Amino acid sequence: MSKIVECIPNFSEGRNKEVIEKIVDTLRGKEGVKLLDYSSDSDHNRTVVTVIGEPKALQNAIIDMASRVYEFIDMTKHEGGHPRMGALDVVPFVPVSEVTMEECIAIANKVGEEIANRFNIPVYLYEDAAGSSDRQNLANVRKGQYEGFFEKIKKAEWKPDFGPAEVNVKGGCAAVGARVPLVAFNVNLATDKIEIADSIAKIVRHIGGGLRYVKAMGVKLEDRNIVQVSMNLVNYEKTAVYRAFEMVKMEAKRYGVSVVGSEIIGLVPMAALINTAEYYLQVENFSMAQILEKRVWE
Amino acid sequence: MSKIVECIPNFSEGRNKEVIEKIVDTLRGKEGVKLLDYSSDSDHNRTVVTVIGEPKALQNAIIDMASRVYEFIDMTKHEGGHPRMGALDVVPFVPVSEVTMEECIAIANKVGEEIANRFNIPVYLYEDAAGSSDRQNLANVRKGQYEGFFEKIKKAEWKPDFGPAEVNVKGGCAAVGARVPLVAFNVNLATDKIEIADSIAKIVRHIGGGLRYVKAMGVKLEDRNIVQVSMNLVNYEKTAVYRAFEMVKMEAKRYGVSVVGSEIIGLVPMAALINTAEYYLQVENFSMAQILEKRVWE
Repeated sequence: MSKIVECIPNFSEGRNKEVIEKIVDTLRGKEGVKLLDYSSDSDHNRTVVTVIGEPKALQNAIIDMASRVYEFIDMTKHEGGHPRMGALDVVPFVPVSEVTMEECIAIANKVGEEIANRFNIPVYLYEDAAGSSDRQNLANVRKGQYEGFFEKIKKAEWKPDFGPAEVNVKGGCAAVGARVPLVAFNVNLATDKIEIADSIAKIVRHIGGGLRYVKAMGVKLEDRNIVQVSMNLVNYEKTAVYRAFEMVKMEAKRYGVSVVGSEIIGLVPMAALINTAEYYLQVENFSMAQILEKRVWE
Repeated sequence: MSKIVECIPNFSEGRNKEVIEKIVDTLRGKEGVKLLDYSSDSDHNRTVVTVIGEPKALQNAIIDMASRVYEFIDMTKHEGGHPRMGALDVVPFVPVSEVTMEECIAIANKVGEEIANRFNIPVYLYEDAAGSSDRQNLANVRKGQYEGFFEKIKKAEWKPDFGPAEVNVKGGCAAVGARVPLVAFNVNLATDKIEIADSIAKIVRHIGGGLRYVKAMGVKLEDRNIVQVSMNLVNYEKTAVYRAFEMVKMEAKRYGVSVVGSEIIGLVPMAALINTAEYYLQVENFSMAQILEKRVWE
């Protein structure tokens, strides 16, 4: 198998099905590109797409998609509950197979530049593609949102990486980045006390003094009458799944509460679970090249 | 990705490099077939090949390979330390991706029949492809070896599944089968006492009353001055890797000996390790379809 990159573009339309289909259609039936999933939220008025492909084919498909986005979406009329800075709001590239992060950063640069030039859009590079540390965090880049960017963009430190230093009134701005895949991982506790899940979440997550690449919150599972620590592992290579799991277990002990199970939501990179198996089995000198399927697909 | 089957043909030549290359060459440069590995042992006078491919392409490649094997290898002149019953000694088919065991059994039947008809070779189906329980175990089928088959084949219960009820003098007989992948898994113990590794091996393995799909023995690692329980997990779907690991750990406790590490030798199917991660993380309702790479490659 050749080089595979994942892209999860988010665009600012989650209500008009006809428009959504016209936009998503640009990712269908293209050689070297595969649409895996898309879901629209009408409260957020936003659609999240998951698409994979060979680098060059994927880049071209995303540019095609962008041209429909800028044709059909008008930010002057957009409202929705989710933060957004433009019609094509965020475009992260994620390495999946036989591709390095450096290559994804290069792709983010190329796509960002092309979006800027072709559609006259201010483009910011974020996460691993960011040129400065204050642009790494997407929330930081997007702060102020579409409406606030008319002022924000005038500041020297918020000069776009590509394109004009002026908001495109119809299309807004765009954030294009490169990052490792997210793992959505929840740990279920043998208690119905939400305050226990909340306290553990606060301890485990980065902002609370916990693990560097963990975001967490307490959630009540009404139907099962238990609570869970719901986590986003934003860099499973640096903060491993098993480490987050063991830390939740360790903190739950303080309350005499045991772990009844866990959930992995959506897609997870094979390496995140292989690495966990390696830890528990204490495997010495393992290489991902020993995975039969890697040999098949490489 | 399409259907992928693995085949690990073993042929009875491990010394004559020219012959070995001529035989292995039949698996090179073929659309839909990929030679992963081959290694020859001159004491055993035998070569083990690992090749994968799409079912039809792989079948054809194996038949091509067989024609060279029967051209170049003469069993009347063969000697070597490893048990063998023919020039093309064993041909197991293993499901790897998007393929069921039933499909591998069907492939074993087709390839077995073609080897029998094309090259006039008595063929026995073994492991999951076996027609009767006494043909499941390869050691049982091969018992008596090439030399003994001239008598063995006359017995009603050892009538071949395909081909003549008479040994092909030059080519011998062949065993063609279907099985799940082997996992070679060793657990290292914090002791230099080989008798401890031996006792644990005897308890963990099937013939000693242990786990159904585990073969095990004690091995001394001279350079590290420790011992290990060296295992073959012959069906990781039914006897999971973590279960063998935990059982070795449990038995080692009797001697106050801890596990210092483990090793996975050679290739391992992704599912064997994903399953282990699921166990330790107590993951609920996980599906292999959540593995990102599966979605990429499926």
